[in-house]
Amino acid sequence: MKVKDKDYRTIWRSPDTPAVQIIDQTRLPFEFVVRDLNCVEDAAEAIQEMRVRGAPLIGATAAYGIYLAILEDSSGDCLRHAYEKLLATRPTAINLKWALDEMMSVVEAARPGDRLAVAEKRAAEICTQDIETCRSIGQHGLSLIEKIAEQKDDRINVLTHCNAGWLATVDWGTALAPVYMAWEKGIAVHVWVDETRPRNQGASLTAWELNAHGIPHTVIVDNAGGHLMQNKMVDLCIVGTDRTCANGDVCNKIGTYLKALAAFDSLVPFYVALPHSTIDWTLEDGSKVPIEERGQSEITHMNGLSEDGQVFNMQIVAPGSPATNYAFDITPARLVTGLITERGIAQASKQGLLALYPERRID
Amino acid sequence: MKVKDKDYRTIWRSPDTPAVQIIDQTRLPFEFVVRDLNCVEDAAEAIQEMRVRGAPLIGATAAYGIYLAILEDSSGDCLRHAYEKLLATRPTAINLKWALDEMMSVVEAARPGDRLAVAEKRAAEICTQDIETCRSIGQHGLSLIEKIAEQKDDRINVLTHCNAGWLATVDWGTALAPVYMAWEKGIAVHVWVDETRPRNQGASLTAWELNAHGIPHTVIVDNAGGHLMQNKMVDLCIVGTDRTCANGDVCNKIGTYLKALAAFDSLVPFYVALPHSTIDWTLEDGSKVPIEERGQSEITHMNGLSEDGQVFNMQIVAPGSPATNYAFDITPARLVTGLITERGIAQASKQGLLALYPERRID
Repeated sequence: MKVKDKDYRTIWRSPDTPAVQIIDQTRLPFEFVVRDLNCVEDAAEAIQEMRVRGAPLIGATAAYGIYLAILEDSSGDCLRHAYEKLLATRPTAINLKWALDEMMSVVEAARPGDRLAVAEKRAAEICTQDIETCRSIGQHGLSLIEKIAEQKDDRINVLTHCNAGWLATVDWGTALAPVYMAWEKGIAVHVWVDETRPRNQGASLTAWELNAHGIPHTVIVDNAGGHLMQNKMVDLCIVGTDRTCANGDVCNKIGTYLKALAAFDSLVPFYVALPHSTIDWTLEDGSKVPIEERGQSEITHMNGLSEDGQVFNMQIVAPGSPATNYAFDITPARLVTGLITERGIAQASKQGLLALYPERRID
Repeated sequence: MKVKDKDYRTIWRSPDTPAVQIIDQTRLPFEFVVRDLNCVEDAAEAIQEMRVRGAPLIGATAAYGIYLAILEDSSGDCLRHAYEKLLATRPTAINLKWALDEMMSVVEAARPGDRLAVAEKRAAEICTQDIETCRSIGQHGLSLIEKIAEQKDDRINVLTHCNAGWLATVDWGTALAPVYMAWEKGIAVHVWVDETRPRNQGASLTAWELNAHGIPHTVIVDNAGGHLMQNKMVDLCIVGTDRTCANGDVCNKIGTYLKALAAFDSLVPFYVALPHSTIDWTLEDGSKVPIEERGQSEITHMNGLSEDGQVFNMQIVAPGSPATNYAFDITPARLVTGLITERGIAQASKQGLLALYPERRID
């Protein structure tokens, strides 16, 4: 999408060097910095430190991580080492494992001398596929917004949590792809952007990317969505997901469950947008999803911009008080109106998902 | 309660001057500053800028505001002007009007020459009554914690939102009074402290006062409570309220409704602690409570402590993105397990409240 009128993806091969380049999302929204990834360690660090984040983009970065590993050493030992290193970076997003398995299957089948080219090609394909997948998700989600637009003259209010925009993918986004497409079709759409504590991906990333594209939006604290829904100020919720289980239970950024409860209570449709690579067919339900627990400094400290334009970190919690930082929660399928996938909109149930992905049916 | 081993209230008459003194809560948790209120304008400013906050303490400060007005001029015109000025400071907390009406009824009945003494006495009584009321709320709430303690060997986890501790009242607190009493009785209690964006009253005030008293607690982001309740990590929720309607609908800090939904969904008891002065018998239900909309800078900017110990303000939302700041929401009575009052625990319903306050029955 556009940044200062220039088209960007979130990850790409450098035109000048063997490196891979990313937008360093830890520097947003106050600084726009492109960062080189020169080796597999750089890729792993970028995922772990959340310079790249969002399930699809984590997958794409891990894919390029295998390419970067082969740049140094194309042996099987090195490959397996890189696989393990990348897999260990984040425990929750299932796309990470999906992308790594995809890479390993093509790379291990190739002769060592061909592996670099094969890896580069497959990583690029994963990126291209991700864009096409997001475009399809956007088209299917657009139909929901169009239906609301037929019945409403005023602006359409979409609430989203965390960042599942183009910054979370290679381009377009998942939850925000329908919003971008509605905007391009001239539909008056407005996004309520949940701040998304503790890392503020909403206030930092979703607000930044919507602003860069000129889409009307308003930042709210995570506490506010229930009040807005009670008062008919939200027409539709769309969020992303880090892992969706075979029964339609949705693992996503902590706090998603609270918004789904409020939507259910106020009869607001609650949709989850996801590519097929986010579905974990091996998990029957959400109870077995590993929930990442991150460091407490993400809660006790925060980055901001001082009056004189310096970015720095400050303490925001009472000194001496500990914090606990669960990064994700599980939204039960019963609270989810539908799953917007690249193949269409599924009911959040085993039957619903299998109807769209019949090849996953085990008879 | 204790601050560095010294007993404090949140508001008191200066022993040396005619002034009223408060703990300036906008300076917490990083600085402990006592501030003089020398005139009614100071009292109004302290309420408006939230140097004092919490429904009971707002009432107590407004009461002393009338005393400060009379210090300058005891005429009826001046009194009515002070009343209007103080009433306009915050629109949601009903105690403000209650305390002002209490003051006016005794002051207007007195001769101008007696008004200062009458006002000082009545304001002090309002403070003493608040402490006794909170002590009774604590006793009734303690019974709930004791019942859980009979059935559980492990620590008892109480989740609270915003600050309804002693800093929100003159002493003891409402929601936290039962916790302080349980702790004094040797019950192993632990508090999950919601950060409470946008003003962080949980991370700043609740964490600070619990820490000062040595009560185990952990700060969480507002998004996390649902996950904790789903996973049986919360035994009991207790929150305060800024206004409770005649039918038991509860107006409290934005985000309370989301926690009540989660508690209901996970069968966690959800209690609201309140003095009688917080009940608005004139409002049939929550739909008519005025919801204060505060400035967007409370969302886009935040105070914190730099590494070198300076307190300052920084921008935390993407530049150019607007924010909307509703300060309260309504939790429907159907989600509230009970109302802990100074007279006992009421069902959150008209019948439940009238059973405890039969003098309010209109036959």
